[in-house]
Amino acid sequence: MAVLDTALEKIDSNLDLALGRLFKLVEIPSVSTDPTYAGECVKAALWLAAELRSIGFDAAVRETSGHPMVTGHAKAERPDVPHLLFYGHYDVQPPDPLDLWESPPFEPRIVDAPTGKRIAGRGVADDKGQLMTFVEACRAFKETGGLPCHITFLIEGEEETGSPSLPAFLGQAKHELKADMALVCDTGMWDRETPAITTMLRGLVLEDVVIHAADRDLHSGMFGSAAINPIHVLARIISDLHDGKGQVTLPGFYNGVNELPDDIAGQWRELPFSESDFLGQVGLSVPAGEQGRSVLEMIWSRPTCDVNGITGGYTGKGSKTVLPNQASAKFSFRLAGLQDPRKIAESFRTFVKERLPADCRAEFASHGASSAMQLPFSSEPLSRARRALQAEWGKDPVLIGCGGSIPIVGAFKRELGMDTLMIGFSLDDDRIHSPNEKYELSSFHKGARSWARVLNALAL
Amino acid sequence: MAVLDTALEKIDSNLDLALGRLFKLVEIPSVSTDPTYAGECVKAALWLAAELRSIGFDAAVRETSGHPMVTGHAKAERPDVPHLLFYGHYDVQPPDPLDLWESPPFEPRIVDAPTGKRIAGRGVADDKGQLMTFVEACRAFKETGGLPCHITFLIEGEEETGSPSLPAFLGQAKHELKADMALVCDTGMWDRETPAITTMLRGLVLEDVVIHAADRDLHSGMFGSAAINPIHVLARIISDLHDGKGQVTLPGFYNGVNELPDDIAGQWRELPFSESDFLGQVGLSVPAGEQGRSVLEMIWSRPTCDVNGITGGYTGKGSKTVLPNQASAKFSFRLAGLQDPRKIAESFRTFVKERLPADCRAEFASHGASSAMQLPFSSEPLSRARRALQAEWGKDPVLIGCGGSIPIVGAFKRELGMDTLMIGFSLDDDRIHSPNEKYELSSFHKGARSWARVLNALAL
Repeated sequence: MAVLDTALEKIDSNLDLALGRLFKLVEIPSVSTDPTYAGECVKAALWLAAELRSIGFDAAVRETSGHPMVTGHAKAERPDVPHLLFYGHYDVQPPDPLDLWESPPFEPRIVDAPTGKRIAGRGVADDKGQLMTFVEACRAFKETGGLPCHITFLIEGEEETGSPSLPAFLGQAKHELKADMALVCDTGMWDRETPAITTMLRGLVLEDVVIHAADRDLHSGMFGSAAINPIHVLARIISDLHDGKGQVTLPGFYNGVNELPDDIAGQWRELPFSESDFLGQVGLSVPAGEQGRSVLEMIWSRPTCDVNGITGGYTGKGSKTVLPNQASAKFSFRLAGLQDPRKIAESFRTFVKERLPADCRAEFASHGASSAMQLPFSSEPLSRARRALQAEWGKDPVLIGCGGSIPIVGAFKRELGMDTLMIGFSLDDDRIHSPNEKYELSSFHKGARSWARVLNALAL
Repeated sequence: MAVLDTALEKIDSNLDLALGRLFKLVEIPSVSTDPTYAGECVKAALWLAAELRSIGFDAAVRETSGHPMVTGHAKAERPDVPHLLFYGHYDVQPPDPLDLWESPPFEPRIVDAPTGKRIAGRGVADDKGQLMTFVEACRAFKETGGLPCHITFLIEGEEETGSPSLPAFLGQAKHELKADMALVCDTGMWDRETPAITTMLRGLVLEDVVIHAADRDLHSGMFGSAAINPIHVLARIISDLHDGKGQVTLPGFYNGVNELPDDIAGQWRELPFSESDFLGQVGLSVPAGEQGRSVLEMIWSRPTCDVNGITGGYTGKGSKTVLPNQASAKFSFRLAGLQDPRKIAESFRTFVKERLPADCRAEFASHGASSAMQLPFSSEPLSRARRALQAEWGKDPVLIGCGGSIPIVGAFKRELGMDTLMIGFSLDDDRIHSPNEKYELSSFHKGARSWARVLNALAL
């Protein structure tokens, strides 16, 4: 019997034990955003290090200036196999509001639902359950004949607070963490039956702008119209940033943005995705972005510009006839393909400055600039992972994009020169960050089996 | 000797006594905005009523739901003379910050300055000193041969808090307060040597708009560009409200706005007014409004549109990639001439609604709509007052506009059908509402003399 088959059998027969282990981890309220739970974060890290040691990993809890990291290393039997870095996080969001939970958030349990059994509890989908699918796949191999690939674990405890300690840690542990490829499990399936691999992540340029005018707030009756109003100036700049067809007007903005390959475009067109359902769930009906693009393109593969916040003048109750001396806005640009974040930021600042009337000046602040990530569609590991998931689920996985950013993926590329394969088994309705978070039992079980197949495929 | 000359002599010879009376009033800290001083407001009202009674007025302190009013009535000797309603207020702004005062705010004194003697103290210019110029003019006539006109006083104690009790009081005391014309002293001179009569007050339409889009805040990575961004919608509306020449684009906006008569336009052109000094005092250099208009036109006689406040999305520190579900702004329109405030508000709401893309709706709230006030340039009382001031100051008074609004003037027109003659003697550098408020001794002395001349002229 092939090693893989034995490993899959182990996963099947040990499912109850695996669930018991997951429950132990979920029972630890490792809420990273609330200092009250700092001790629980340490407890979760210790538990995970012990867990990894129990399956033969050289594991350690590593101190940081925040919550600790867990690392673990284990070699495959064969030396000439890839080295993979697996990333996950043990921290969870606060469970509030508690009264909306149908069962206590840190008392995980199996719940019957019309669509099958599910696991309920804070962190079961984000990210403890997902993380444990990979641990269980490793355990199955360890109990069978050894790992098919060399594996390093990196499990952090600050994902929900923006990973403040991670960049420094990556820098100092570079040699230990550098592998041939990274695996990240913090993503989802297309739907209950269809696996997915996330191959595109949009980049992000964050720019704050303050438009300054007079040297003080003025009375709009005394100065109105004679004195320039910075809210008007800012509004015109925002208005000018899109044309009538929903395209961003920054010069050079679309440089490096390529059309999808035909097969991927075709796959996306065939997906059972209802634009009206997608928008309808949040009370909308008409896609607002670039004319002639599908909603999936808008949110996965096309760059965008949004104002995330704006403020100026009097914003309290009633009226105040003030002519404010400044107005400010927070802009974000989602990048796609090979767009250069620095050039986008520069082009934006020039665009703003060119639109400043006399007596106005603009003050800029950057909150970051990162490129989009695109795993080449022709990549060999991607093809192998695709076939492995197909074998488990009986369906070709969808190669999807992700509109948001997963900063760790950029950091792996930048700091460690590694591409990332993003595979995860959560579903859109898992209510991550909300009360009654759940993870499908099938996600947990077939997720572990999927990882076993992927590890096996990557080693061949 | 003519009655007027005798009255003027009385004013001159009694100046020290008049100052003593003003000081008594200024010593009462009748701060209306702070409930701690409610008793002091009552004290000021009682003092004023006693003062009016001491010169033969039938005066009373009148309760309201807030600080009391003072009313007073006295007849002229001759029956066939005009009945005038004089309006002033006894309440003052808080004196904070106290440490910036060179002498205690409620211990009035005469101070020597390079430009002459001045009176220092909270409220000396706004409005106690101005108010007492009129009282002293009445006293002088009373001590001479009687008032030249029938006079009613209306002195309120809530001007600095938006006059909440005034509308109801005007409604209930209509018959008692209705006169041939109102006199309001809460305005200023053109400069130290040149008197002014304010003949135009701009109207005001205040509209809040909230643009609603999705039914919740969205993640800009997940929904950006597919979901409409209400900040963008609002920015486009604001941007569309002015054309490239600084004109307001609301359909019908300029209906009822007339050009100035040639003589007034000429008077304004000849005024020693430096646009660059006016803008330079607040750090600006270029007039921002309608091309081809002078700054005085922009702030006195032309209608305007300003956004006084805007807010939407995340406005804290750092970044948050939120796509907000609403954005709001506070709009104000200053009206001139015969612009109809209701039509302007309607036109604005239509303008906004016409620019709403699919899935957006606008919520409106009005904070008031008032017409502009324009005392006809051909009015007989205006001509008489003009000649009276010319006689006192040796200079034709400038007929100026006021960019802000003086709500009482609108209320007198609306509730009592009266025009208002606005004459006051404060200067731009009187620091009203600020520490070290002052009133020129010449404003006080020649102000009283001016009122004596105006009252005499209006009676002829």
